[in-house]
Amino acid sequence: MDQPTLTKLLKAEGIAMSATELHTLAQGAAAAPPSLNPDRWMNLVTPAPTLRLKTVLRDLMQGITSASTSSESAVSRLIALRKALVDANIDGFIVPRADEHQGEYVPSCAQRLSWLTGFTGSAGTAAVLDDRAALFVDGRYTLQAEMEVDQELYQVVSIADTSMDDWLADELPDGSRLGYDPRLHSRNQAQRLRKTCESAGSSLIAVDRNPLDSVWTTQPPPPISPVAAHDERFAGQGLREKCLQIASRISESGSEATVLTMTDSIAWLLNLRGGDVEFTPLAMAFAILHRDSSVDLFIDARKLGPDLGSHLGSQVAIHAPEHFGAALNRLKNETKQIQIDPATANDWICRQLAEGKAKLIEATDPCVLPKAIKNSAELDGTRAAHLRDGVALTRFLHWINNASENGQITEIDAADQLETFRRQGKNFQGLSFPTISGAGNHGAIVHYRVDAASNRPLLPGELYLVDSGAQYLDGTTDVTRTIAVGTPSEEMRDRFTRVLKGHIAIATALFPVGTVGGQLDTLARQALWNAGLDYEHGTGHGVGSFLNVHEGPHRISKSLAGAPLKPGMIVSNEPGYYKTDAYGIRIENLVTVVERGRPESGERDLLGFDTLTWAPIDRCLVQKSLLNDKESNWLNRYHTKVRETLTPLLDNDAAAWLKSVTASI
Amino acid sequence: MDQPTLTKLLKAEGIAMSATELHTLAQGAAAAPPSLNPDRWMNLVTPAPTLRLKTVLRDLMQGITSASTSSESAVSRLIALRKALVDANIDGFIVPRADEHQGEYVPSCAQRLSWLTGFTGSAGTAAVLDDRAALFVDGRYTLQAEMEVDQELYQVVSIADTSMDDWLADELPDGSRLGYDPRLHSRNQAQRLRKTCESAGSSLIAVDRNPLDSVWTTQPPPPISPVAAHDERFAGQGLREKCLQIASRISESGSEATVLTMTDSIAWLLNLRGGDVEFTPLAMAFAILHRDSSVDLFIDARKLGPDLGSHLGSQVAIHAPEHFGAALNRLKNETKQIQIDPATANDWICRQLAEGKAKLIEATDPCVLPKAIKNSAELDGTRAAHLRDGVALTRFLHWINNASENGQITEIDAADQLETFRRQGKNFQGLSFPTISGAGNHGAIVHYRVDAASNRPLLPGELYLVDSGAQYLDGTTDVTRTIAVGTPSEEMRDRFTRVLKGHIAIATALFPVGTVGGQLDTLARQALWNAGLDYEHGTGHGVGSFLNVHEGPHRISKSLAGAPLKPGMIVSNEPGYYKTDAYGIRIENLVTVVERGRPESGERDLLGFDTLTWAPIDRCLVQKSLLNDKESNWLNRYHTKVRETLTPLLDNDAAAWLKSVTASI
Repeated sequence: MDQPTLTKLLKAEGIAMSATELHTLAQGAAAAPPSLNPDRWMNLVTPAPTLRLKTVLRDLMQGITSASTSSESAVSRLIALRKALVDANIDGFIVPRADEHQGEYVPSCAQRLSWLTGFTGSAGTAAVLDDRAALFVDGRYTLQAEMEVDQELYQVVSIADTSMDDWLADELPDGSRLGYDPRLHSRNQAQRLRKTCESAGSSLIAVDRNPLDSVWTTQPPPPISPVAAHDERFAGQGLREKCLQIASRISESGSEATVLTMTDSIAWLLNLRGGDVEFTPLAMAFAILHRDSSVDLFIDARKLGPDLGSHLGSQVAIHAPEHFGAALNRLKNETKQIQIDPATANDWICRQLAEGKAKLIEATDPCVLPKAIKNSAELDGTRAAHLRDGVALTRFLHWINNASENGQITEIDAADQLETFRRQGKNFQGLSFPTISGAGNHGAIVHYRVDAASNRPLLPGELYLVDSGAQYLDGTTDVTRTIAVGTPSEEMRDRFTRVLKGHIAIATALFPVGTVGGQLDTLARQALWNAGLDYEHGTGHGVGSFLNVHEGPHRISKSLAGAPLKPGMIVSNEPGYYKTDAYGIRIENLVTVVERGRPESGERDLLGFDTLTWAPIDRCLVQKSLLNDKESNWLNRYHTKVRETLTPLLDNDAAAWLKSVTASI
Repeated sequence: MDQPTLTKLLKAEGIAMSATELHTLAQGAAAAPPSLNPDRWMNLVTPAPTLRLKTVLRDLMQGITSASTSSESAVSRLIALRKALVDANIDGFIVPRADEHQGEYVPSCAQRLSWLTGFTGSAGTAAVLDDRAALFVDGRYTLQAEMEVDQELYQVVSIADTSMDDWLADELPDGSRLGYDPRLHSRNQAQRLRKTCESAGSSLIAVDRNPLDSVWTTQPPPPISPVAAHDERFAGQGLREKCLQIASRISESGSEATVLTMTDSIAWLLNLRGGDVEFTPLAMAFAILHRDSSVDLFIDARKLGPDLGSHLGSQVAIHAPEHFGAALNRLKNETKQIQIDPATANDWICRQLAEGKAKLIEATDPCVLPKAIKNSAELDGTRAAHLRDGVALTRFLHWINNASENGQITEIDAADQLETFRRQGKNFQGLSFPTISGAGNHGAIVHYRVDAASNRPLLPGELYLVDSGAQYLDGTTDVTRTIAVGTPSEEMRDRFTRVLKGHIAIATALFPVGTVGGQLDTLARQALWNAGLDYEHGTGHGVGSFLNVHEGPHRISKSLAGAPLKPGMIVSNEPGYYKTDAYGIRIENLVTVVERGRPESGERDLLGFDTLTWAPIDRCLVQKSLLNDKESNWLNRYHTKVRETLTPLLDNDAAAWLKSVTASI
């Protein structure tokens, strides 16, 4: 449809938007991840599009998404970037994977590292100097990086061997100028980088415009995905109350405002859910919370539906993102003290706030802890979501039990089938992370992501590991089950039982108030250690409420960093064992921290965990002689609860199967 | 004896020392802690003093030590200090407990905090402002500080409630100048203090001369205690080899020298043992280790006996302490890179080294790790020392079993008797820390130190806790036993057994190479947690080899800070339980980290602990029903080993008693 015709149509439909504006909006919508309902973005054009308009809008979107993407090679991209560095008068440049918000998932417009190097992992940083470049990744991603990037262009460096700091210290020429985009590094990261440069006799230069963006000609626009109010039935607390509560903390600490930069903090505080990144219902935004509890929200207003005005009310003033800098300038000159989190706020914001009247106080984002401590509505919601999720997973396990015998199911079949079962659950909004569907040797790759090239069948005599989760309006799930296809080996059963012992040790742990998750980590590993085995990942991470599937401030890991466990927190319990090139085992339930009271004549109030996840654990893989009575009892009690809880929600076939696989051992 | 007569005598004895020099030497010797042999200092005058000279020197020392000490009140001291602050143009001053070396024990000349405030604990800091002052102590010392200091003068602040940083942030007037003595703060501490002052709008001012020293008119001189070579039979490695080894590490990291500031690092590196502080054979000294492995040692040469020249050889050049500053100046202008430990080097040293040609690289003291990893001679030595120590403790436990029945033994009697038994052991050099001898309610005070006022009898129906250790030429010991006097209550037996379960969990732990002690801490607490109980101290600390009874870099505690456990490290295993105002329980053995190999079909090399301490654990306090088989077996095996090891070294009575108290449960 040509522009004049489109303009006419919009006018006829009563839509106050020019054809150009519509085009830009559609490009933003195309830059957001796909929604369950592909037409949902149309609500941003008009609340009730006519059929005719829908057809036109669908064609428009089709035209945008099928437009060919650029085909420059990695080498031409690197050459172009180096040229831009010369133009910017810098000798090198750091390209992190992060965006301005330092979240786990970044929108397509911020996938700079992937565009430049081809590396698609979720963590990594490239350093580009004039005659050499390197990509720094952690142990999870070394192999993947070596496959994805051209090693003629980029040295792939495992940070366990050489940190980027050490590499830069060696490689930076004396007196050189290393550039960085302060929007893409947290305050702490930038300060560390600055120290590294100074020790090496170089200077760290904050660029005003990212030189990579100037050569990335096909960079998508920022995503535009509809933002909805998160129902107070699920949130359990209105945004006014939350703002008052957080504002009073800010105020008590002597500050007049705090700048919120994490999109999940803003989503939690204002009961908003968006769709700008994959797997997590987040909208790209910044916010300033003032001590009077009013909020300035910097967000593309085109994302906001008409009902959001009444939701946000007078509490929240909406501003265009491009006014954020000016607002920070005013803030630093009109207040005495501002609180900011140097671990997550980007350095550009901190630099904007520097050298004003206001003192900058560094403190953890004040939303992090209250967001992690779920209220009773959130806990009720997550329990309900976990029932639906347990039904889907149990139907899936039943299906795979019937279908996998002859090796006719592949990893992709299995992942698709599981998603199909989940979609049938109420309030389902999508997956909470890419499903890990690993048969045999693939199970040993902790962050395995199946694709057409790697896809393989589930074969008898192997283990199959599936780690998956979903976003429901009332809660976020994350669960791993490992099952035997056919008959498992004795070694597999030994390893599985040791992992199960670790899982049970966490599930049944009693610990005093004040305990940090890291203090419990060893309990999950002891049975493996005794056999000279271990696993190279944490034992548990926090989980949000229809938010991030990985959230802080608590976790269970070898490192004790992290906040004490508090009642209402949700955390995963996921010990594992991985035999390279052979098989992987992980048993993951989500649990919530609960009060266990004070034993008679005890002196400390105790905490423990209640399990949220309900799905059978493969009894074929349990070697009963390795379990003590307490452990066997736990497994039997868990299975009884799984059966009692899920049976009413299953068809007869599945219920009968569940009955047999949850019988006592 | 008047000066001319003394001069004449010295001349007659062939001693090239003036009477004034002798006086100064004797004053230094008097300022050192008492030695086992009170005449040992005389060797610093002449190797073989005649009887006549000995008598004269004894009289001289007697005169010095009986000279009356000053009797100003705490208030007059504080007034004098405040006046000195005005003269020095500063508005406040920080008085830490530390000396220039940041060690655990400080010599009498550096007991500034105690002189000023009266507080004698081993950790604390005073902040003196012009109209208020505060003493900051940790939880161990809150009660003691409140008893010892005049709270009209000093607010006693528990750092768990308010850190000194927070207090200063509130109390420092805008624009004020806070003074500190850079010799008495580590680099890290000083930087933190500077940040606090700057945030509060104040300046931190490094004083050139400590204003407290100018008003402490009776401040003792630095201690002068004889320094001896540590026999290579015990050290297991010559100083030349150690210097080469550490120098090559320095060199590899690109530095040309390191400044050693911890007296135990210097003692270890140069195989020297002194007596300048209580309980630990240390000489006050600084050293510079160059990459060619030569050492500049800054020490009062009067401490060094004539045999030390051949021990130190050409490797070590001796310099007077007052030449240290000039040497640092040369170093910074003549080298390109110097390594220093900001956690332990005092800030004055770092300031001296700043702004020269040399780059300052911050890294952990390179002696810390090799010192902690004992070689086979050190391990053989510590095993031999532990046998002697076990004999002394077992004789003591036998003695107390016979003598305590009617409440006629006091805490002081017991501590004295235990020391008497220890003195009879070969190579005994003194206690390794003040004995904790706590009956009944005193046992619940974790760092209880009995004195005439607190002394009380051991009464039937109570528990008695004794935590003690010794310095032997071949090793340092530290052991705690808790025994029932008469019949214990069921509650005591329950608590004791839970502590024992924790002790056994550590003693039998298997863990992969790379594990940090903190990862094991929870194993020691789980049996207590299950009953709603816990203890407020770490589970284990490193122990030196005829050196500090508390040394790093490893430990077992709730915090994961600390280095991974490595074979050859010695660590204490000391869970406890304390019921305030009632009783205390602690069971402490020293253990050494050993390789346990790789289990069949395992993938990780495992480590574990071998026990070093041999003495019976009170079976009357063990509730067998609470122990599982593995735990009962451990106790029986331990007792069998105690019996077999110690019996040949005991008289018949004690051996018979030992046989009965080590019978199987």
